[in-house]
Amino acid sequence: MLKQRVRYAPYLQRVKTAADVVPMFRTGQSLGWSGFTGVGAPKVVPQALADHVQRENLQGKLRFDLFVGASAGPEESRWAELDMIARRSPHQVGKPIANAINDGRIQFFDKHLSMFPQDLTYGFYSRHKPRDAPILDFAIIEATAIKEDGSIVPGASVGASPEFVAVAEKVIIEVNTATHSFEGIHDIDMPINPPHRPPYPYTTVDQRCGVNAIPVDPAKVVAIVESDQRDKVPPNHPADTTSRAIASHLVEFLEHEVTWGRMPKSLHPLQSGIGNIANAVIEGLTSSSFKNLTVWTEVLQDSFLDLFQNGSLDYATATSIRLTEPGFKRFFDHWDEFASKLCLRSQVVSNSPELIRRLGVIAMNTPVEVDIYAHANSTNVSGSRMLNGLGGSADFLRNAKLSIMHAPCSRPTKTDPTGISTIVPMASHVDQTEHDLDVVVTDQGLADLRGLSPTERAREIIQHCAHPEYQPILNDYLERSEFYARKNKCMHEPHMLKHAHQFHINLAEKGTMKVKSWD
Amino acid sequence: MLKQRVRYAPYLQRVKTAADVVPMFRTGQSLGWSGFTGVGAPKVVPQALADHVQRENLQGKLRFDLFVGASAGPEESRWAELDMIARRSPHQVGKPIANAINDGRIQFFDKHLSMFPQDLTYGFYSRHKPRDAPILDFAIIEATAIKEDGSIVPGASVGASPEFVAVAEKVIIEVNTATHSFEGIHDIDMPINPPHRPPYPYTTVDQRCGVNAIPVDPAKVVAIVESDQRDKVPPNHPADTTSRAIASHLVEFLEHEVTWGRMPKSLHPLQSGIGNIANAVIEGLTSSSFKNLTVWTEVLQDSFLDLFQNGSLDYATATSIRLTEPGFKRFFDHWDEFASKLCLRSQVVSNSPELIRRLGVIAMNTPVEVDIYAHANSTNVSGSRMLNGLGGSADFLRNAKLSIMHAPCSRPTKTDPTGISTIVPMASHVDQTEHDLDVVVTDQGLADLRGLSPTERAREIIQHCAHPEYQPILNDYLERSEFYARKNKCMHEPHMLKHAHQFHINLAEKGTMKVKSWD
Repeated sequence: MLKQRVRYAPYLQRVKTAADVVPMFRTGQSLGWSGFTGVGAPKVVPQALADHVQRENLQGKLRFDLFVGASAGPEESRWAELDMIARRSPHQVGKPIANAINDGRIQFFDKHLSMFPQDLTYGFYSRHKPRDAPILDFAIIEATAIKEDGSIVPGASVGASPEFVAVAEKVIIEVNTATHSFEGIHDIDMPINPPHRPPYPYTTVDQRCGVNAIPVDPAKVVAIVESDQRDKVPPNHPADTTSRAIASHLVEFLEHEVTWGRMPKSLHPLQSGIGNIANAVIEGLTSSSFKNLTVWTEVLQDSFLDLFQNGSLDYATATSIRLTEPGFKRFFDHWDEFASKLCLRSQVVSNSPELIRRLGVIAMNTPVEVDIYAHANSTNVSGSRMLNGLGGSADFLRNAKLSIMHAPCSRPTKTDPTGISTIVPMASHVDQTEHDLDVVVTDQGLADLRGLSPTERAREIIQHCAHPEYQPILNDYLERSEFYARKNKCMHEPHMLKHAHQFHINLAEKGTMKVKSWD
Repeated sequence: MLKQRVRYAPYLQRVKTAADVVPMFRTGQSLGWSGFTGVGAPKVVPQALADHVQRENLQGKLRFDLFVGASAGPEESRWAELDMIARRSPHQVGKPIANAINDGRIQFFDKHLSMFPQDLTYGFYSRHKPRDAPILDFAIIEATAIKEDGSIVPGASVGASPEFVAVAEKVIIEVNTATHSFEGIHDIDMPINPPHRPPYPYTTVDQRCGVNAIPVDPAKVVAIVESDQRDKVPPNHPADTTSRAIASHLVEFLEHEVTWGRMPKSLHPLQSGIGNIANAVIEGLTSSSFKNLTVWTEVLQDSFLDLFQNGSLDYATATSIRLTEPGFKRFFDHWDEFASKLCLRSQVVSNSPELIRRLGVIAMNTPVEVDIYAHANSTNVSGSRMLNGLGGSADFLRNAKLSIMHAPCSRPTKTDPTGISTIVPMASHVDQTEHDLDVVVTDQGLADLRGLSPTERAREIIQHCAHPEYQPILNDYLERSEFYARKNKCMHEPHMLKHAHQFHINLAEKGTMKVKSWD
């Protein structure tokens, strides 16, 4: 099986078990893993290293700077539990790794996903190392095939693997023989840094101008390790009343844009995040009248398969295809159909400001909270507690033709079923600014913010998006702030800085954001 | 003189005085003016309208939605004083207009300068109008010549004029005969919106692929008005000890980047803002060892002329050349020399994320404040009081290879010579996020933030950038926040939300940010 997949003969001399490669690693090394949103990441080598640490009680003694395009699989959480991660960027998923970050045991920094691989190749993240040290000690890359020239055919994601391979001193390839080969589905632009970078030539979502595998200097490949483990993606959260209401407001808005001639009937390429709201939106589009849709996004989920199969979707491109077990089965059962309508690119291309702006993408993402003036928090709960990271949200929202944030208008706490309001007076952390959002939509309704001043925006957002129980509280905040601002001649974006975070303080102290008094 | 400049004969039948065109205007109309950073804006038509309002006591009765690429000249302030502006975007300069915004008399919204003209052409800002209404009723465009085909040769700025001309129902051209013709210095890409937009082909700063004048349907041109008034740019603030210290830290940093091989000796194209720090940085580069520099920026100031004339600068491009009276004299005295090394583009090109990222620009801007985690406020003092607007700061900082913010470490209040700290616990308004900044530099020193987690960044910024009197206060905030965050498992970006804006509250109440106690 491995021989079928590895078509470059010299590599077959370098086949090793995962346990064989463990002694190559030293504490303090910098590693780049393939993978994006939990698929296409290495599995058996990280597991062997974790087993080694566990067996030898090396917790905290074998620690790495770990870079993954976005999130890896459950292995990164196991590494976090075993205190094997000193530094991590730019995005992660999993309670154990988030806990380690929020306990201060992992130094994490999140960076725009389009920018991270580029900054890495510049040497920005290895500037503390000696000048002749490699940027990465190892790239550990999952492949589903190796071509005759030794180049790597990735699996369900491309992510930052092209950059990792380019700047790593040594490369370990995990050849996954448990999944189908993904050969033919990738279109990869290898990194060329300024001042020599040419334009990305793509003017439609379906153009392919790259290579179909990641070139690598075979001399750098120190081990080929067979992997027999498939990607494990948890089941999708089904759409519910809330997410269906959001989707319905959004579909109505898009239909209105078509009616007014600001969008063609096929819309513009769609970008959509992960989660049940994103799924509900895609479901909403599936049952709507839009045809010949296209998708330019980071990650494709199961719901896109429906959109393909009912004929609404012409072509989709992303850096990752994150399907559930039944989703992958369906995907491979109809491989020829899907492979002709789909392409995976590197994350610097899928998330490229150049291409998102040129194509006029419709970007849709879910924030933690949005404030009355349309600043959004995508990352830090109550200003401090990291969830997953910025991801590509700002890559898309900053450059899209239409920048949309969608979220439920409220969320429950232990004591109050609507204890957390998505709409707050001032975001406790800002990842997307007021200059970046066109539309905010919740299950309550949709606020179209285009061309509005901050105080006009505030009224739209409170009226259309806030939960009815929070509307009077938010209006009270706005009116008091305006009263204060009128006196002090600062009416552009009125705030009471003393009380700007009262919602969050109230939540911490009383289990609900329902502020009773501002004093 | 006018006949020499207007080479399209039919226009000569449409020559009118400024007073002649006044009756064409109605309250509630939408206008687009040429101009960017105070140069190249129309003068005599706005003045005639202002005279009319003043004479006829029409204050508040003849009001317009006014769009200018960035800021116009003093005319927009006069309009603000006469209550002639209902809505304004995306950037403005002048105390009277800022006062009108902060009094709530003008609805102002600021938008990334690369995005604003595009969103205007999409119809986003005219969505409240009837469907067949024009996006703009009038474009009033300053020209320094008219070509044989009727196309408009702008003056010292291009800005958003190509978009204004494209979407206006009627065009009034002010032909400025008091200044030299700028013919030959422009390279203009006319707007093409998605899904038909091609790549911008530029891979070096000196490439020209556009047209050298703005095409216009002559049928739309309703008046040619001669203008005899030059651009009036106030004298530059000379560099002082503080700005020289900032420049010196920055030049040292850039030299270090060259030594470490992360930048070539000619650096990458420079972007630099307006003001005495920007000038000091350019002066610093003039006397440094860098050669063959290039510039890709929004606006060129007098200091760039020195950089050209001492041979350090090979080529510069921007959307505006904002020179003082002596600067323009020097410019025209050496026209052939400068015109061959300089080109003015439309603002969607000068500020294009596509090009800024491709070219690997070094972006440098001055914020109001930066917080310990590297969120920056560029627009709203104490969260609410609008200065000028976002401008192109985020266009550049979000896409540059190196994103640099420079500012004095403190500013005076009436009662305390260091009453305002540029470094604050939490920015009172966020325009640039922690994900966007690589370097913060003040007269105290420079913090290199690349690859650092938020708490690591905080220590760098406090130690290297904060004024010594604020260092213990900021450290105290950080340590108390960490104590609180350790208990609450939110160590990623520790804050005390109750006290996050204490610096600003203290300033409002006591005239200094020097917080004595957190309670």
